[in-house]
Amino acid sequence: MQFHHHGYVSEEPRLQPAAGVGLNRPEELPDEVDVLIVGSGPAGMIAAAQLAQFPNITTRIVERRPGRLVIGQADGIQARSVETFQAFGFAERIIAEAYRITEMAFWKPDPADPSKIVRAAVTQDDPSGVSEFPHLIVNQARVLDYFAEVAANSPTRGKPDYGYEFVSLEVADEGEYPVTVRLMHTAGEHEGQERIVRAKYVLGADGARSKVRDSIGCTPIGDKSNHAWGVMDVLAVTDFPDIRTKCSIQSEAGNILLIPREGGYLFRMYVDLGEVPIDDAGAVRNTPIEEIIRHANEIIHPYTLEVKNVAWHSVYEVGHRVTDRFDDVVDAASGRTPRVFIAGDACHTHSAKAGQGMNVSMQDGWNLSWKLGHVLEGRSPESLLSTYSPERQVVAQNLIDFDREWSTLMAKKPEEFEHPSDLEDFYVRTAEFPAGFMTEYAPSMLTAEATHQELATGFPIGKRFKSAQVVRRGDANPVHLGHHATADGRWRIYVFADAARPAEASATADFAEWLANSPASPVAATPEGADRDAWFDVKVIYQQGHSEVEFADVPEIFKPLVGPFQLMDYEKVYAVDPEHDIFDERGIDRAGAVIVVRPDGYVSNVLPLTATEELAAFFRPILRASVPATA
Amino acid sequence: MQFHHHGYVSEEPRLQPAAGVGLNRPEELPDEVDVLIVGSGPAGMIAAAQLAQFPNITTRIVERRPGRLVIGQADGIQARSVETFQAFGFAERIIAEAYRITEMAFWKPDPADPSKIVRAAVTQDDPSGVSEFPHLIVNQARVLDYFAEVAANSPTRGKPDYGYEFVSLEVADEGEYPVTVRLMHTAGEHEGQERIVRAKYVLGADGARSKVRDSIGCTPIGDKSNHAWGVMDVLAVTDFPDIRTKCSIQSEAGNILLIPREGGYLFRMYVDLGEVPIDDAGAVRNTPIEEIIRHANEIIHPYTLEVKNVAWHSVYEVGHRVTDRFDDVVDAASGRTPRVFIAGDACHTHSAKAGQGMNVSMQDGWNLSWKLGHVLEGRSPESLLSTYSPERQVVAQNLIDFDREWSTLMAKKPEEFEHPSDLEDFYVRTAEFPAGFMTEYAPSMLTAEATHQELATGFPIGKRFKSAQVVRRGDANPVHLGHHATADGRWRIYVFADAARPAEASATADFAEWLANSPASPVAATPEGADRDAWFDVKVIYQQGHSEVEFADVPEIFKPLVGPFQLMDYEKVYAVDPEHDIFDERGIDRAGAVIVVRPDGYVSNVLPLTATEELAAFFRPILRASVPATA
Repeated sequence: MQFHHHGYVSEEPRLQPAAGVGLNRPEELPDEVDVLIVGSGPAGMIAAAQLAQFPNITTRIVERRPGRLVIGQADGIQARSVETFQAFGFAERIIAEAYRITEMAFWKPDPADPSKIVRAAVTQDDPSGVSEFPHLIVNQARVLDYFAEVAANSPTRGKPDYGYEFVSLEVADEGEYPVTVRLMHTAGEHEGQERIVRAKYVLGADGARSKVRDSIGCTPIGDKSNHAWGVMDVLAVTDFPDIRTKCSIQSEAGNILLIPREGGYLFRMYVDLGEVPIDDAGAVRNTPIEEIIRHANEIIHPYTLEVKNVAWHSVYEVGHRVTDRFDDVVDAASGRTPRVFIAGDACHTHSAKAGQGMNVSMQDGWNLSWKLGHVLEGRSPESLLSTYSPERQVVAQNLIDFDREWSTLMAKKPEEFEHPSDLEDFYVRTAEFPAGFMTEYAPSMLTAEATHQELATGFPIGKRFKSAQVVRRGDANPVHLGHHATADGRWRIYVFADAARPAEASATADFAEWLANSPASPVAATPEGADRDAWFDVKVIYQQGHSEVEFADVPEIFKPLVGPFQLMDYEKVYAVDPEHDIFDERGIDRAGAVIVVRPDGYVSNVLPLTATEELAAFFRPILRASVPATA
Repeated sequence: MQFHHHGYVSEEPRLQPAAGVGLNRPEELPDEVDVLIVGSGPAGMIAAAQLAQFPNITTRIVERRPGRLVIGQADGIQARSVETFQAFGFAERIIAEAYRITEMAFWKPDPADPSKIVRAAVTQDDPSGVSEFPHLIVNQARVLDYFAEVAANSPTRGKPDYGYEFVSLEVADEGEYPVTVRLMHTAGEHEGQERIVRAKYVLGADGARSKVRDSIGCTPIGDKSNHAWGVMDVLAVTDFPDIRTKCSIQSEAGNILLIPREGGYLFRMYVDLGEVPIDDAGAVRNTPIEEIIRHANEIIHPYTLEVKNVAWHSVYEVGHRVTDRFDDVVDAASGRTPRVFIAGDACHTHSAKAGQGMNVSMQDGWNLSWKLGHVLEGRSPESLLSTYSPERQVVAQNLIDFDREWSTLMAKKPEEFEHPSDLEDFYVRTAEFPAGFMTEYAPSMLTAEATHQELATGFPIGKRFKSAQVVRRGDANPVHLGHHATADGRWRIYVFADAARPAEASATADFAEWLANSPASPVAATPEGADRDAWFDVKVIYQQGHSEVEFADVPEIFKPLVGPFQLMDYEKVYAVDPEHDIFDERGIDRAGAVIVVRPDGYVSNVLPLTATEELAAFFRPILRASVPATA
């Protein structure tokens, strides 16, 4: 965590100095905004938290509810999401309060007496170490609280506007604020009254029944299954031995997915309510909680469950739907760039049982929000926004396909499996997907072809930058390189040095010189008057141990002077950790490599140290030729 | 972190439900309190945070300042203190914002040109792994903020009363509130007016010029050195290479101790101002900051330091003083138990440069506060309070002795050393002391003789319980056993099982049966109506792997039913982590052992599983024979 460089900070260092529109932020929703976000769920809140980092962008997030979410809904947190929380600065706090999944147990009918269940298998949750972060369970309400805190602590002092429902929108062909949004007050003295807000861009993060989606003519495509599940968050006394372990329980009476929850006592059960008759007309949704508990007791026989307190419960039917596009551009060939976007459940709905929804939604929101920030600030052309829909639509389709397979397996009767271990085998085989690491963006203006992938085999282009341990030179601290990538909207350029010592002439030194001083360097686009690292966070990782690296020998680009006092930033120079050589662990060529990482943490390009023209060419379409200064 | 067992918690789980005196806490300082703490520094604030956990005890903390501490003062945080923060629930947050010391560099005159300094040696800060927690630097103001948050989040909703100065006190021989304290308003509409508060107990944590100390007739004994140091927290531009590393810099022009600070830019320098003439009469304290900066530049030649911003600075002369007693009992043989205590700088003053003051002060405050809680709640007799002064006075004396040696070395001229490496050798040789782990309480009513020490050589009686890794059975999580010891005022009994499997008859099962059901068991003292584990947190660690431990086989005492719903606590049953077998790492006899740990984390006793009578005899003088119920 870096602070004090604008002067001494006595209180909470997570509170950034107010700046730009945060200096005099109107309490009331203004008539004109840069970005209007509809819905304060995970997709909307992460987008708000990211956009709040751009001092001169007015972002407002409207929410139908009169206040914060209290209970219920999603609770599964992939390791990829915890990486994301690290970027937003609250990973360690949410880890401390969450439940951590390390194993999954599979209970099945006892072959000797199929009326009873027995523990048939236990699998590890992340046997291959796909991330250094854990797989967590914590209520969505807390995730939203943390994002709200990030937004409130940001330079723009972002805060949700509760009590506004989205009614409709219209997009004009021109004008500074081309999107006209009609809202309705849902609470307070103006309840029932309409309100018009004009926006440059609108994000519909308004859930499975999204009206923003409807207003831009997107149709969710897919099926509604005829299988119903009851879900309950309960405090209970039970003799079921694995009540604090994630379990799949398959019995003759049906199936349960058991998810232990944060705090050591609460747990969630998804209880199979079986096939729903075609003429049910939603009647299954009225299944009383007593019936769900009774059925749970049947399934876990010979064990019993005495529910003492029901924190939340619901009944739902599994459906799998995804929209074909995530923005308002019907004809991609028209060259029009989008003004309205949808994210999260507005785009993709599926079963809750793979713990995916909140996670994919957050990546939707993050993917879009930094792009909106860059376009609105004038860093990038509007064409950047056209990358959102294709990137995220593919991810959503993969999610739907995965979840359809997983939820079908979960609903199967034990005797329907070809092999008894099919369920756990699927779980183990596909572990990387639900952990959130299978996203691999296809080549585009943001994702280079894998021409030089062999220079860094551990950083696949299009996938998220997988952190590894290094030693920070300045303070000799063993740190995770990726944990210093905060959600500040900056591009990151990691320069993995060649084998030369820092003091020697080298390809690394030549590349650093070009990056710092060439008019063709992307860093040259940084506005006059801004800190040298305002747009590009450039770091170097030497192959030597930290005691062999002296700051005097390190090129200037890796030790920029920042803030009003122009103090040196000592946290961009790294050396290998001898016990975890990052060059070995990430397959980096000893001749060095340049890794370009997007503001949302995905690898955009891998290049040799000599490929300055390729790097310049990569950034040319991303950066606007003439860049206005930011305040 | 355990919560939800009193019903679903939607918001911050670190906020405990209000109870007892916290249900209707008066905003104004009341006329009568159980404990009055004078001074909101580290000793006072930890005591307030600990006492705030006892629902029926009224604790108030008065502070002369009108509000929180803003800047300056202590910044060194030993690993022992971070362990303490873990117990109070904020370790991960303060680690995230602090500077972490991993190395110390020693700069000395270049033998080839003694007018210039060169890096002569670099030593690791904790080569032996004395703690799993890091050694940190963070401003005292933030430490106090976190303790204030703990107190505010506690059942009693504790909060400092700012704007009251201590004037004097008198202790009567009888009465429910025998200590009469005169205070003076230092701010607000009553400024200058006196205020009388009556208390059962008073803690003077009012600093080096403690008036509470004076009022009980304690005299600080020791010397005032004639060596002065300037200290400054600054933002600066420099070419000194190790500006982000802790450094001792010895040059012909004098000495500097450099302490990098949190946030990546700020650092503290202790700059040697040399011998002070006997007739100086405090004139050295008026040394201007420009003079300190100029002198720092001379010392670091050939490097330079351009100070851009001074956050704080001060000048002090090193003194070493300790009081002979820490309470108001002049004649220990009288049998009188104390009513007034002093802690922290009120008892011990010394140089700031070993980074000890805040740490020892916090352990003073913690040592006393749980004892006050137990006596006031009626768990323990008043004689418990007589253990405070002898336990902490020895620690203070050791601290003074250590610091005198270290600060003398730090002030020596390079040519005065017998061996050039004397300074760094001393630093490495004595590392465990400044890390906070040399405290070893002598036998007393709280500390048993080391009769059975060989059963657990890694848990020395009298020293702090050193955590190690285990696997928690309930959720198969690898965890640190010691990290689950929260500052809740409970005794802890760790039962390291013998080699038998949980389902078999065993010494462990017999011990558990005795502990749960014998009238002689300390657990039998727990009041009627309170949760089974309200006074004693009893945990078991099996020698088997977690998959070999089934809850059905575990004795009841290790899985108590708690809270209004009487839910099972699944977080007291542990198994070995096969990669870190705690029995091996802590030298525990395979026949098992019982480790008794005080509420402030020190090992009180080590016993065989069969020594039930010894355990009963140990607790007999600590627990009151007839125990009133707590609400």
